[in-house]
Amino acid sequence: MTAKFIVIEGLEGAGKSTAMAICKQFLQQHHIDFVQTREPGGTPLAEQLRNLIKQQHEERVASETELLLMYAARAQLLHNVIRPALKQGKWVLGDRHDMSSQAYQGGGRGLAPDTLNALSKIVLHGLRPDLTLYLDIPPAIGLERAKGRGELDRIELETLSFFERTRARYLQLAQQDECCVVINADQPIEKVHADILVALEQFYFRVSS
Amino acid sequence: MTAKFIVIEGLEGAGKSTAMAICKQFLQQHHIDFVQTREPGGTPLAEQLRNLIKQQHEERVASETELLLMYAARAQLLHNVIRPALKQGKWVLGDRHDMSSQAYQGGGRGLAPDTLNALSKIVLHGLRPDLTLYLDIPPAIGLERAKGRGELDRIELETLSFFERTRARYLQLAQQDECCVVINADQPIEKVHADILVALEQFYFRVSS
Repeated sequence: MTAKFIVIEGLEGAGKSTAMAICKQFLQQHHIDFVQTREPGGTPLAEQLRNLIKQQHEERVASETELLLMYAARAQLLHNVIRPALKQGKWVLGDRHDMSSQAYQGGGRGLAPDTLNALSKIVLHGLRPDLTLYLDIPPAIGLERAKGRGELDRIELETLSFFERTRARYLQLAQQDECCVVINADQPIEKVHADILVALEQFYFRVSS
Repeated sequence: MTAKFIVIEGLEGAGKSTAMAICKQFLQQHHIDFVQTREPGGTPLAEQLRNLIKQQHEERVASETELLLMYAARAQLLHNVIRPALKQGKWVLGDRHDMSSQAYQGGGRGLAPDTLNALSKIVLHGLRPDLTLYLDIPPAIGLERAKGRGELDRIELETLSFFERTRARYLQLAQQDECCVVINADQPIEKVHADILVALEQFYFRVSS
């Protein structure tokens, strides 16, 4: 079985960290060698870009600047971590990937689909996750959870309508992507965990049989 | 007369700073209100990106990462400085602009023309300099001059063949661009100054008549 690329996606407070922990445990139980990444970030330079993207600036950050920084960080992570890992037969477990840019910068910021598609093409060269778990949650509930964790960053401070647009784009992309499973994250936590495990089991059964 | 955008281009050590000084003096003598920019950089965030681009990193910086950081800085400068200035009727005098990415990342690094063109389109939305002065110099001579100024940055430390490819792309682009004047920067300094002044006088005569 070739190495697989699994990505967790969702709005702030959707429960991505818990989902990552469940996936990690699943991979460990199946004795699968893997590397864990997060976006933006995952290499020293990409983490510096993450800080620049998330921090407040004196000047207005243009939507195109934000988008290009996201893809600069992604290009670096792909070149130095994701592609080398997959080549070595290691699975990659990602906390966010390209779908986040499509949803946040495309849906939320309203940048043109052509712009997003051109950048995806330039940076990804056709690489796509084998499985995406999109944790769906109403923005108001997710943001309430995120607030409970402390200070919100520049993007988390966006308006509710920004996150509504982001969620709508997420749902639209999930529908078009046969490798994406939508997890209803607005349920009791045990039910969310169970749904994530079912999706992982089904994926694993499919790729290992 | 609408505000104009003048750009100085060329390899390290070609004499861009001196050319900038000549242009500034020319604009002042003609009582033209202008702003001066440099790329990458020119806004607080873009200057932070400049540092990330020029400094040495522990990890390899992927060519695509470098390219996307250049365009992120350019997008920020365009949104926050260049477009507002032109809109207010101020001329813009730029130390490097898009032609640098085409020459260094396209020619030097060998990134595909389609990639460069897609990014130019996304970021520039058709904006083009009204006049570009390309200072042409053999790389060996330019680098010798640049070395004399002190420590070389990550890009200045590239191989001579990198700069040969960059220069070849510069010359090719200059030939295709009717708004670009090639200045032979490998001449006695007085002759270079005189050639720059002639180009500025001819441009000014053309746009003001």
